[in-house]
Amino acid sequence: MTNETEHSAVQRRNPLALPGNKEPSSSTSIAPERWLLRKVHEAVGEPPLRLRLWDGCTVGPESSDMMIELRDRGALYRLLRHPNLAFGDLHSSGRLRIHGELTRVIHVLIDSMNAQAHGTSPAWTGWFKRGRKLRVRKGANLTAARGNIHHHYDLGNDFYRLWLDRAAMQYTCAYFESPDYTLEQAQLAKLEHVCRKLRLQPGQTVIDAGCGWGGLARYMAKQYGVRVRAFNISHEQVAYAREAAREEGLEDRVEFIEEDFRNISGSCDRFVSVGMLEHVGPANYKALAGVVSRCLHADGLGLIHTIGRNRPAPLDAWIEKRIFPGGYVPSAGELMRLFEYTPFSVLDVENLRLHYAQTLDHWLERFRAHREEVARDYDEPFVRAWELYLAGSSATFRSGGLQLFQVVFAHPRNNQVPRVRKDLYHAPAAPSETP
Amino acid sequence: MTNETEHSAVQRRNPLALPGNKEPSSSTSIAPERWLLRKVHEAVGEPPLRLRLWDGCTVGPESSDMMIELRDRGALYRLLRHPNLAFGDLHSSGRLRIHGELTRVIHVLIDSMNAQAHGTSPAWTGWFKRGRKLRVRKGANLTAARGNIHHHYDLGNDFYRLWLDRAAMQYTCAYFESPDYTLEQAQLAKLEHVCRKLRLQPGQTVIDAGCGWGGLARYMAKQYGVRVRAFNISHEQVAYAREAAREEGLEDRVEFIEEDFRNISGSCDRFVSVGMLEHVGPANYKALAGVVSRCLHADGLGLIHTIGRNRPAPLDAWIEKRIFPGGYVPSAGELMRLFEYTPFSVLDVENLRLHYAQTLDHWLERFRAHREEVARDYDEPFVRAWELYLAGSSATFRSGGLQLFQVVFAHPRNNQVPRVRKDLYHAPAAPSETP
Repeated sequence: MTNETEHSAVQRRNPLALPGNKEPSSSTSIAPERWLLRKVHEAVGEPPLRLRLWDGCTVGPESSDMMIELRDRGALYRLLRHPNLAFGDLHSSGRLRIHGELTRVIHVLIDSMNAQAHGTSPAWTGWFKRGRKLRVRKGANLTAARGNIHHHYDLGNDFYRLWLDRAAMQYTCAYFESPDYTLEQAQLAKLEHVCRKLRLQPGQTVIDAGCGWGGLARYMAKQYGVRVRAFNISHEQVAYAREAAREEGLEDRVEFIEEDFRNISGSCDRFVSVGMLEHVGPANYKALAGVVSRCLHADGLGLIHTIGRNRPAPLDAWIEKRIFPGGYVPSAGELMRLFEYTPFSVLDVENLRLHYAQTLDHWLERFRAHREEVARDYDEPFVRAWELYLAGSSATFRSGGLQLFQVVFAHPRNNQVPRVRKDLYHAPAAPSETP
Repeated sequence: MTNETEHSAVQRRNPLALPGNKEPSSSTSIAPERWLLRKVHEAVGEPPLRLRLWDGCTVGPESSDMMIELRDRGALYRLLRHPNLAFGDLHSSGRLRIHGELTRVIHVLIDSMNAQAHGTSPAWTGWFKRGRKLRVRKGANLTAARGNIHHHYDLGNDFYRLWLDRAAMQYTCAYFESPDYTLEQAQLAKLEHVCRKLRLQPGQTVIDAGCGWGGLARYMAKQYGVRVRAFNISHEQVAYAREAAREEGLEDRVEFIEEDFRNISGSCDRFVSVGMLEHVGPANYKALAGVVSRCLHADGLGLIHTIGRNRPAPLDAWIEKRIFPGGYVPSAGELMRLFEYTPFSVLDVENLRLHYAQTLDHWLERFRAHREEVARDYDEPFVRAWELYLAGSSATFRSGGLQLFQVVFAHPRNNQVPRVRKDLYHAPAAPSETP
C-alpha cells in the first residue's frame, strides 16, 4: 500500500508538461495579422462566434456571445502552423481563451468546419484539415502500450474518483435508457445492457479485456454468477479493482490480471471488451482478433464496445499527443474488418453516440465541481486541458464526428445464438433508485 | 392485361436452358475413376455421406443414409473440372442424384467443407475452393441490370405466388419473432419490424428502392399512413404491385415506378431498400450511396436489408450463372464501406441469419407441394434447379456461410435519432391471427 501511495504522489504532477502561461502581448496587431485572423475565420467556415487578437481587434458577428481570444502574437502564429495541436495547447496554457460555454463553442466550431468541408471550400482552407492529420496511426508494441496506458490511466485513482460515477467507476459511455437517469443509473444500465447482450448464465466463464477499475467484471460476477478473468495493463486500476473485489467478497469469482490483451490465455464462454479497442491501434487488430478466436468457445458470445467513426481518420492530433497517446478510433468499416480476421459473425451493432455526449456532459460538470482540488493537485494548465478534452469530446459526439459502437458476435456455425433482441428490453436496465 | 398474359406465357419455358437428362453410363468405372472419387470425398473433408459412381462403386461411411450419386462418367469429369457449377447443373439435369433430405445433405457437405477449409488441408483440396471462385464480380450497367432482373423476377407472378406467403408476397427474409409463426405471420412481422426501425410517422414520404411486388410499400402506406414512391425494374412485379394497390384503394398513397435505382429522383423522409443490394454489385455501391445521400432529408432515417457474409467472397458460381446473374453478396465490411461513400452514421445492425434459413424451409416446402404444377409449366430440370437453390440457400444460412443484415442509418448530425431500441419491441410484430 505504501508503494502505491508513493506512486500516486509522484504522479501528481501535470504529466502534460505544457508550457506555462505568458503575459498578453502589449504591442498592436499589424495589418497582415488582422488579415490572417479574417482568413482563419473564413477557413473554419465563418462560424457564429468571434475571434479576437491580443489588442482587441475582432472578426465575426458582433452579436455573438461566443468568442475565442488569442492573447499574444505567438499564439496566432502557432495556431497557423499547427492549428489542431496548438488550439489545445494554447487553451491549456491560457494563451487562447474561450468565452462562452466551452462545449457549445466547440460544437459551433466543429459544425461550421464540417459544413465548410462539405461545401465548396477555397484552397486555403485545407489548412485546418491538414492540421488534424499530423499524426501517423500505428499500433503500440507491448512496452509502448504500457507507457501509453500509464500516461492516461495512472493519473491516480483519486483523480478519476472525483468525477466518475460513484456506482461502478466507469470511464466509458453510459447508457441513458431513460434520458433522466442519473450518471450512476446510466452506468449501471450500461453494465446491465452489456450483460443482457452477452446473455450471461450462472457458472459461465468470462474474459474481460481491458477491464478499467473492474466495475463490469464485478457486476457480472455479482449479478449473473459468472466467473471472470479480467485483464488490464494499468497497475493503479488493477490494484483498485482487486481491493474492490475483496471488499465485495467476490475474490473467488473475479480475478484481475495485470497483463496485456495479447497475453490473454485460457478459454471462455463470453468475451467482453469495453473501451479497450480505442487503445489497441489498427496494426494490432489482427492480434486482438487472434486472441478472441483462440479464447472464445464455439458456442460462445462476444461483445466489443468502442468509440468509432463513420469514415477512417486519424485521432485528433492534440488528443493523441496530450490525452491518449497511441489511441486510434476505427471506422465502422475498419471495425467490421477486424472481424474478418476472425471466423465470427457480427450479430448486432448498436450506436450509442448521443449517450456518450450525455455521459461527457456529466463528467465535465462533476470535474468542474472539483476544479480547485484538481488544480491544487496538478496545475491550472492540466485542468484546462481536461476541460477542453471533456467538452470537446462531448461536442464531437454531438456533432456526429464520433460514434459509439457495441458489437455482439459469435461463431458462424453457432445456431444457439439469440434470434431476436426483445429479451434485452424485458425490464428497465437500471435500478430505480440511485445506489 | 393481354400483353402481360402473353408475356407470362412466353416466359413459361425453362429459362435456364439446361442440358437434358442423360442415360446412366453402362460401362464399369476404371481404377483411376475410383481413385478420383476417393479424392473428391477427401477434398470436401470426408463428410458423413456416401459418394457413388454410375456402376455402384461407393466411398464414405456405409451407415450413412445420405448419398450423392454420379449417374454417368461425364458427370464425374464435369464435377472435377468445375465443381461448383457442375454440381448444380448435374443435379438439375438429373445426372447427379442426391439421396436423403436435400437441405440436410447440403448442410452436411458445407459443414464438412468449412471444417476442411479451417483445418490443415492438403494442397489438392484447393480444387473445390477454386471452383467456387469462377466468376469475376462486377456491377451491372442499366441494360444488363434489366436483363439480370428479368431473368429471375419475370419468371411469372403466378410462379412465385405458388410458394411465397399469401399475406404480402415477400421474396426476402421473414422475421420469426416467435419461432412458431406461420410464414404469413413472419413476413408481416418483417414488414412491421422494418417500419418500426424506420420510426414511420403519418404523412412522411418514403422511397422504397427495389420494391418487389410492393408488399412493403402497401403495408407502410396502409398501416402507417405514409406516402411511398416505390422503384423496381421488373415489369411483371410493377404490374402486380400496381394492381394490388388499386384493389386495396392505396393508389393515392403508393406510386410504383418502373425505373432503375440510379434514376430515383426527389427527396424523402425515409429511405428503405429490402433485398435489392444483392443485385446491385459492389461497383455500383458508390452510385447507390450517392442516390441515398441525395434523396434522404437531413432529419431522415434509412434502412437497408440485405444478404451478407462474414468475409468478402464471390457469389457461388452456379447461383450466379443460373439463378442470380449479376448478383453479389457483400461482407459486413463491404456493407459498412458503402456507408463511407455517404455522410451517414450507422445506427443499428441486426443479423437475422437463422430467420432466413427458416424462411427458405417454408418456401421449399410450399414449392414442393406444387412440384408437378411447376414441372408442367416449365420442366423437370427447372424444378430440380429451384429445389437445389432453395435447399442449398437454407443450408448455407444454417451453416453460417450467409448472413442477413438489416442496417439503420441517419445523417451524422441528426440528433433526433432514436436513442434506444426498446420501442421496437413494445408489442408483438405480427398479428396473432394468420391473415
